[in-house]
Amino acid sequence: MNVGKSIPRVDAFDKATGRTKYTDDLCDSRALVVKLVHSTIAHGLVKAIDISEAEKVEGVVKIVTCFDVPKYYFPTAGHPWSTDPHHQDVADRLLLTDRVRFYGEEVAAVIAANDIAAAQAVRKVKVDYEEYPFVLDVQEAMEERAPQLHENYPNNILGHSNLRIGNYQEAIKEPGLIKFDNWYDTPTVQHCHIENHICYAYEENGRINIVSSTQIPHIVRRVVGQALGISWGKVRVVKPYIGGGFGNKQDALYEPLCAYLSTQVGGRLVKIDVTREETFTNNRVRHAIRSHIITWVRPDGTIVARKLEAFSNQGAYASHGHGIAAKGMGAFPQLYPCPNVEADAYTVFTNRTVAGAMRGYGIPQAMFPVESQIDDIARQIGAHPLEYRLKHLMPVGYVDSFSKNENYFDSFRQCIEKGKAAIDYDRKYEEYKNQTGNIRRGIGCAVFWYNTAVWPISLETSSCRMVLNQDGSVQLQLGETEIGQGADTVFAQMAADILGFSMDKINVISCQDTDVTPFGTGAYASRQTYVGGFAVRQTAELLKTKILEYAHELTRMPVFNLEIADNNIVRTTDGRILMSVGDLACEALYSLTHSQHITAEGTYQIKTNAYSFGCCFAEVEVDIKYCKVKVLDIVNVHDCGQLINPDLAEAQVHGGMSMGIGYALSEQLLYDPKSGRALNDNLLDYKLPTTMDHPDLAAQFVENYEPTSAFGTKALGEPPVCPVAPAIRNAILNATGVPLYKIPMTPHVLFERFTEEGLI
Amino acid sequence: MNVGKSIPRVDAFDKATGRTKYTDDLCDSRALVVKLVHSTIAHGLVKAIDISEAEKVEGVVKIVTCFDVPKYYFPTAGHPWSTDPHHQDVADRLLLTDRVRFYGEEVAAVIAANDIAAAQAVRKVKVDYEEYPFVLDVQEAMEERAPQLHENYPNNILGHSNLRIGNYQEAIKEPGLIKFDNWYDTPTVQHCHIENHICYAYEENGRINIVSSTQIPHIVRRVVGQALGISWGKVRVVKPYIGGGFGNKQDALYEPLCAYLSTQVGGRLVKIDVTREETFTNNRVRHAIRSHIITWVRPDGTIVARKLEAFSNQGAYASHGHGIAAKGMGAFPQLYPCPNVEADAYTVFTNRTVAGAMRGYGIPQAMFPVESQIDDIARQIGAHPLEYRLKHLMPVGYVDSFSKNENYFDSFRQCIEKGKAAIDYDRKYEEYKNQTGNIRRGIGCAVFWYNTAVWPISLETSSCRMVLNQDGSVQLQLGETEIGQGADTVFAQMAADILGFSMDKINVISCQDTDVTPFGTGAYASRQTYVGGFAVRQTAELLKTKILEYAHELTRMPVFNLEIADNNIVRTTDGRILMSVGDLACEALYSLTHSQHITAEGTYQIKTNAYSFGCCFAEVEVDIKYCKVKVLDIVNVHDCGQLINPDLAEAQVHGGMSMGIGYALSEQLLYDPKSGRALNDNLLDYKLPTTMDHPDLAAQFVENYEPTSAFGTKALGEPPVCPVAPAIRNAILNATGVPLYKIPMTPHVLFERFTEEGLI
Repeated sequence: MNVGKSIPRVDAFDKATGRTKYTDDLCDSRALVVKLVHSTIAHGLVKAIDISEAEKVEGVVKIVTCFDVPKYYFPTAGHPWSTDPHHQDVADRLLLTDRVRFYGEEVAAVIAANDIAAAQAVRKVKVDYEEYPFVLDVQEAMEERAPQLHENYPNNILGHSNLRIGNYQEAIKEPGLIKFDNWYDTPTVQHCHIENHICYAYEENGRINIVSSTQIPHIVRRVVGQALGISWGKVRVVKPYIGGGFGNKQDALYEPLCAYLSTQVGGRLVKIDVTREETFTNNRVRHAIRSHIITWVRPDGTIVARKLEAFSNQGAYASHGHGIAAKGMGAFPQLYPCPNVEADAYTVFTNRTVAGAMRGYGIPQAMFPVESQIDDIARQIGAHPLEYRLKHLMPVGYVDSFSKNENYFDSFRQCIEKGKAAIDYDRKYEEYKNQTGNIRRGIGCAVFWYNTAVWPISLETSSCRMVLNQDGSVQLQLGETEIGQGADTVFAQMAADILGFSMDKINVISCQDTDVTPFGTGAYASRQTYVGGFAVRQTAELLKTKILEYAHELTRMPVFNLEIADNNIVRTTDGRILMSVGDLACEALYSLTHSQHITAEGTYQIKTNAYSFGCCFAEVEVDIKYCKVKVLDIVNVHDCGQLINPDLAEAQVHGGMSMGIGYALSEQLLYDPKSGRALNDNLLDYKLPTTMDHPDLAAQFVENYEPTSAFGTKALGEPPVCPVAPAIRNAILNATGVPLYKIPMTPHVLFERFTEEGLI
Repeated sequence: MNVGKSIPRVDAFDKATGRTKYTDDLCDSRALVVKLVHSTIAHGLVKAIDISEAEKVEGVVKIVTCFDVPKYYFPTAGHPWSTDPHHQDVADRLLLTDRVRFYGEEVAAVIAANDIAAAQAVRKVKVDYEEYPFVLDVQEAMEERAPQLHENYPNNILGHSNLRIGNYQEAIKEPGLIKFDNWYDTPTVQHCHIENHICYAYEENGRINIVSSTQIPHIVRRVVGQALGISWGKVRVVKPYIGGGFGNKQDALYEPLCAYLSTQVGGRLVKIDVTREETFTNNRVRHAIRSHIITWVRPDGTIVARKLEAFSNQGAYASHGHGIAAKGMGAFPQLYPCPNVEADAYTVFTNRTVAGAMRGYGIPQAMFPVESQIDDIARQIGAHPLEYRLKHLMPVGYVDSFSKNENYFDSFRQCIEKGKAAIDYDRKYEEYKNQTGNIRRGIGCAVFWYNTAVWPISLETSSCRMVLNQDGSVQLQLGETEIGQGADTVFAQMAADILGFSMDKINVISCQDTDVTPFGTGAYASRQTYVGGFAVRQTAELLKTKILEYAHELTRMPVFNLEIADNNIVRTTDGRILMSVGDLACEALYSLTHSQHITAEGTYQIKTNAYSFGCCFAEVEVDIKYCKVKVLDIVNVHDCGQLINPDLAEAQVHGGMSMGIGYALSEQLLYDPKSGRALNDNLLDYKLPTTMDHPDLAAQFVENYEPTSAFGTKALGEPPVCPVAPAIRNAILNATGVPLYKIPMTPHVLFERFTEEGLI
């Protein structure tokens, strides 16, 4: 068996030796290049564009402005299409726009023979603006007098969800309740994948071809069709290996524009390769969410009533929009069930970078306030923070009425116990309780749960195809995408086990090509191992059946007495090897009696979901005088069901923990209040943590076999980032007694709070 | 309906506007390039190779010699594999060889950063040879004292077939028989496709990838596996658009070497792009066949007995080998059935360029002697050449015992009648009978039959896949290849008709990729329209059934009352359009109830074959003094069953006629008897005819619907070339009274014969 083993990645050798081809490696060096003209205002109208000087630059092929593009409004979010108009994403984008809504928005595009010509021409494009007032703050944007970004969205509110359980207003009348009333802020951060988004497009036989660094090739195909107003079958999207995505590439970014620009130069090959600065400003960011939580507890800690208000900063366009805030809000009553809840989540347009999907999709923004306040409550009532959690967390047997997800095991307890032991929590917690002095240590914990995939909110479907070769190896094709996480490897492991093949007999077709790759919606929502598992298993079973039926023809043995093991057709009644699968495949293909190219293909629609659980323990050292936090030790514990590949699972957790540390302590994209311009849109000024900022990252697992799953597995891609920031925050609390309400917990934030609390 | 209409080619716009990408267009310009070191002897041993000076050339990456390559002997012929060892092609090639068998054979390869470095290094490689005597003539090679090329092939005989019907020796004893005893020679010619063979290779994830200008990607995959001694599933072959093949690219040419060389430089991208000279000398050529026919007829013309000896010049390696001579011999007793036949065909190794497949595959070589002698017989006994043919040709109802092919219609008569009318034969034949003077005109005719595909000699199988898009369009994938002939277009027409779709809804995936393209053996044997038609039809029927079953789910109408017409689901009982296929496809993919990516795939094994018939009429003007022949008018008439696309069929015939005119009058690859070196291996000295050498080429058709066929069609790709040379030869006979026995009928040949016959 291969599932459950740390098989080396199927792409390891090529990636380690640098031979893996990414989008830019594949693009013909003779491609025309595109450089974009960015607005120098945050809000307003383009009155006119003068391209006369720019057109004179040698090498310029064509300049396309916002006045030239078609007026097909399209959505960019990487969600499956819905045939129900009410369930479709907001279509609020144009390829280029004369109605500028954020500083840096694209108003024109220069197509040139080379980068230099394109850049020179961009500088010579003269844009005449009519400037409007702009708004950056989410709550200011909701005010009556605020500038309005979009028609039909009064007060800039893109979405508002509310949730009512019991009767909050009645419940809080109970005498003797202790009230916890806090505001929390999470920052705008960017995904910072290594490979910036890049794509190139060209026409072939009247169809537009796009090669793109995307997580969602089949979805991008649809969006390009919408954006260009052409039939979706006239679009082909190819996805090579990509250098990370983390949700940013779960939007259609430049593919529609690139495709359109190709059509404007006679279908010639056109490439858009954006800079890091454009990635920060013009791609997607994580929604900054401001949360207000009021919790009423009895002196014994019983949570009687809770009120939540969340204000999600959408930036200028809808993208994934309200889904993020709604998901964050949804986590609230399930994590610590409470009889009386009032929750309201608002997603609000502002004149900032568009917020979209990012690893965790609202849960990191929710876990920071929720898990911070829980620690504060426990501290205030004198309870042990872990015991308090275990008493009030979602109990075993809990079933969510909407998703039908069930907490089958005592996963939270198991994860917490494992994490405690790993980090030597009990001893340290006691030791760090009452420190004095400038350097203090602390230990903290936070938990989370996460859904697996998007059912029942949205469609979950995955198709798979397998093609048998003459040597008994197969090609495995899935619409689900390898984006660096190791998806190809786990799918190969699954296929090998169901087929009875060795790993070297599985050739994963990593590159998706919407023309020939079975439909799958791609990498997001921690869905692929779970969702793709069903499709791989179903197709492998089908292929195996076809192989055994052919074996029946060749051997005259009944199918029910045949099995495949170690690449051989085996008679189960006595274990005799009758022939190799390779010999069978060769005979099947070349038979003069019955020639058959054995392949299998099918769609599996997934109508289940699964809770994934976990926690983070962090140990920190705080230099009070210098307001500096150092993470000394950190461990994440996850119950993501059976691990398909423990080493890859560990790597996945390491990446998420690193992202969580940056979220907790250093990362934030800042905007100039005077211009609306992003201030630190580069990796020098934007403080992405490096290995120098990390202790060893420890990942541990609790493997409760998920009963709804094809291989016992559930979400792991996004979970690791979710509990890290509050765990560090709670460790700082443990060290200093000072609760923080804002991330990143930079020296500036600590200085302010330590001053308020009298530590300095 | 689209079948039967002259729909524009699906690739017309891109090809006409120059945007179609061929292999070299797709290859990264940073590829390492390969130049080959060619032997300067025709026969012998490489004793040693000194690469020390060559290695010093800047830019040289690696030099691989014949002493470095593995000793896996492999075949190159583009035939389907057979699991029966007796039916496999002869495996006599190595990647590079120290046993040189023809002048120019590859003994080493230089891999360098650029062409110039590679070429410089090639000149500095010093090869030390031990030279053997060599032989170029096919009959000399069979002599006892001739140099032997291969072990296990005494007298250099690669293959010998014989055929015995009745009793020839007894039959010829009949008194009063007239004996016709002639020797005929056909030349070595080359395919002269526009795009020379080119391929490039690189390793990816431990597998070797090859992009190649080939007719037979799935077969090349297997040959590369054999040549490198690796499992076939570790090889991937991709075939882009190609600039012609005509059978030359029905061999694995440089793909195995290119793949191997990539493995010798760490899997880096390596390209082999050969020159026209290498194409002439080192690719494949048409077998020069010398035929000896003795025919015994009664004074009334009845053919009593025939004897045939054919000597096919194989060149240095087996390639397609004896199949060509055997096929030519097989045509003999079927065209003019005769009760007493003795036929022997020999295929013989010589120290010349390797002969392989070329359009017509032995039939042009057979039709020249057969149809020449028939004209001579008619002339001698005073019969009209066409009436004599019609009296003795394969009769209606004739069934070949081996292929089971049947002459269902009176196709020969219909073709001849049509051709006669088209060229105004009767009037001209009479007019030209008794000319005198220097400039004389003549008219001649020749017929042929041709098989369709290779069953029952070999496997015929074709797989197809169709993938439905959200807009109701489909991708069509076949292993059968577009090589310029229009295959993609006719497959699209077929698919559209069976599916009830319009042409714009069919997206043909022209590029074959052995990893994902259903298995098909490729373009050869005039097989694809016939063979692929079965696979397209079967798969389209399957896809339609799946679509209608889904329509049943959506509409609650029974499948038997549903049909697809004009891209819509139609209720047949009242003709009402229930929904478009696009709406159905979209609903199927995104349904929250039943999501399905509708695709269909299957293999069709073909166990039939079909006679294709036709004739050529040519009118010539002969300048006796200058021994020059000018073709004044020419018409081919074909019964290839129903035409799928008349314009494309006509274009196919035009190409074949042009090739036939060159074969008749000007083309021959000559060898220096002193060195064995090809003398005219370039398009300046090798006289390929141009449009300047052609009259208007007229193509006419008789459309007898082939009853065994999926779309009523049968062979057309190769047939047009078959009857042209003897038709021109017979026209010269009609003009001058001089029978010729050798092509090309150059002024040299005419001078010799006119002198012999006393005309000059």
